[in-house]
Amino acid sequence: MDDAAALHEIEAIKQLKARYCRYLDDKDWDQWRRLFDDDFASDIAGTGGRQTTSADAFVAYTRKSIGRPSQRTVHQVHAPEIMLTSATTASGVWALNDVVRLVPGVTLHGYGHYHETYEKRDGHWRIKTSRLTRLREDIAAPLLPQRIAQRVRATAAKLARRTAPRALTNV
Amino acid sequence: MDDAAALHEIEAIKQLKARYCRYLDDKDWDQWRRLFDDDFASDIAGTGGRQTTSADAFVAYTRKSIGRPSQRTVHQVHAPEIMLTSATTASGVWALNDVVRLVPGVTLHGYGHYHETYEKRDGHWRIKTSRLTRLREDIAAPLLPQRIAQRVRATAAKLARRTAPRALTNV
Amino acid sequence: MDDAAALHEIEAIKQLKARYCRYLDDKDWDQWRRLFDDDFASDIAGTGGRQTTSADAFVAYTRKSIGRPSQRTVHQVHAPEIMLTSATTASGVWALNDVVRLVPGVTLHGYGHYHETYEKRDGHWRIKTSRLTRLREDIAAPLLPQRIAQRVRATAAKLARRTAPRALTNV
Repeated sequence: MDDAAALHEIEAIKQLKARYCRYLDDKDWDQWRRLFDDDFASDIAGTGGRQTTSADAFVAYTRKSIGRPSQRTVHQVHAPEIMLTSATTASGVWALNDVVRLVPGVTLHGYGHYHETYEKRDGHWRIKTSRLTRLREDIAAPLLPQRIAQRVRATAAKLARRTAPRALTNV
Repeated sequence: MDDAAALHEIEAIKQLKARYCRYLDDKDWDQWRRLFDDDFASDIAGTGGRQTTSADAFVAYTRKSIGRPSQRTVHQVHAPEIMLTSATTASGVWALNDVVRLVPGVTLHGYGHYHETYEKRDGHWRIKTSRLTRLREDIAAPLLPQRIAQRVRATAAKLARRTAPRALTNV
Repeated sequence: MDDAAALHEIEAIKQLKARYCRYLDDKDWDQWRRLFDDDFASDIAGTGGRQTTSADAFVAYTRKSIGRPSQRTVHQVHAPEIMLTSATTASGVWALNDVVRLVPGVTLHGYGHYHETYEKRDGHWRIKTSRLTRLREDIAAPLLPQRIAQRVRATAAKLARRTAPRALTNV
């Protein structure tokens, strides 16, 4: 494969993982399911989670753990190291930070890496295996109840605009 | 367009958005303004902000909201999904996390996505439209006043070096 | 150099910086050392750190500052602006967020940019110079002692799964 073709595949795998995060946090489980190989193997044992050996089992487990609308989650991935191992297989490492509201008053701020493999079939890359390792897990209790925080935020934003230096308000 | 030419344009758009964040947080408004199409349309209504329909209006609104030197901001973008829709137009989705000091004692930690379009004119890509959606907005009050925090930080860093294991201090 | 060859080098430099973060946070100092030119020059004076003018001095200084196993660190880099300045030299800017446990009870959350140069020799890109500028440095004291936080996290995760809506537990 020449440089351009290889870079095209790497870009496709980067966008696959971007959609993984976006659909997961949007709780769009149907779209999310399509990103995995049927025999997708997940290992999040290191973070207190379960090992699963099929895409359906992984999706079900994830929905059970963080699927409720009140459980707002954020998964952000960074600095991919994607390596093609053949024309239709690849491996990758991604840095991750995630914010997960486990139950009211308990939010997890996690940091770590996804170690993954990918496979291309029928013209589409899918995630075949994924193992999550952790650098840190920090637990935060909210400093302000959510309802009050929203009011504080709105007031502060208004106040910030009102007290802008005159030179700028005249722009 | 062949693979290499398409990837070249995608990389150019990625760097456009990187500069968007960097100039914004550096409060370099002149450089920032040049990244937008004149008729740039912004929709941050979902986060309590205003819709604007020109680049000048958007820059003025942003300066008024977070333009003061004391309002230190951080905007970091991740996992781009850039798609060329023609040789000179493209769409993109970016994950965002931002840290914004609204007023002393009230800092916003936000998470969400930019949904954007881009256009190339005169050899340069510019941002044409941008809509921000939110996953979470957390409000933090500082645990330590800024002046004390800086002293704690300096002392802790010094202490960390002083108590390093002997094997390492001898390196 | 044509488009494809240039993009290939840019991707290689991106992966170099990804490994920089990963080996640093894994405290894999031997692998980390190999990413630098021997005469690597580092300037982190802006963040209270030292200027160093060789790779060995920089590695020694870093190990002394954050090298102990108890000092869990996270370095995540974003939105690279890599520019080739010749076939074997390049410059780059990266956004950074880092989480550094300085001493028990004092954790630094930093945000800023790496401004760097790279050089390719013997077929490998290495970091030649790096200057770190800061947007913010926030100090956090943990809200819960680490041991208690871990117990809370495990219990909350269990509770979250137990109270999942029935429709989902039946998936």
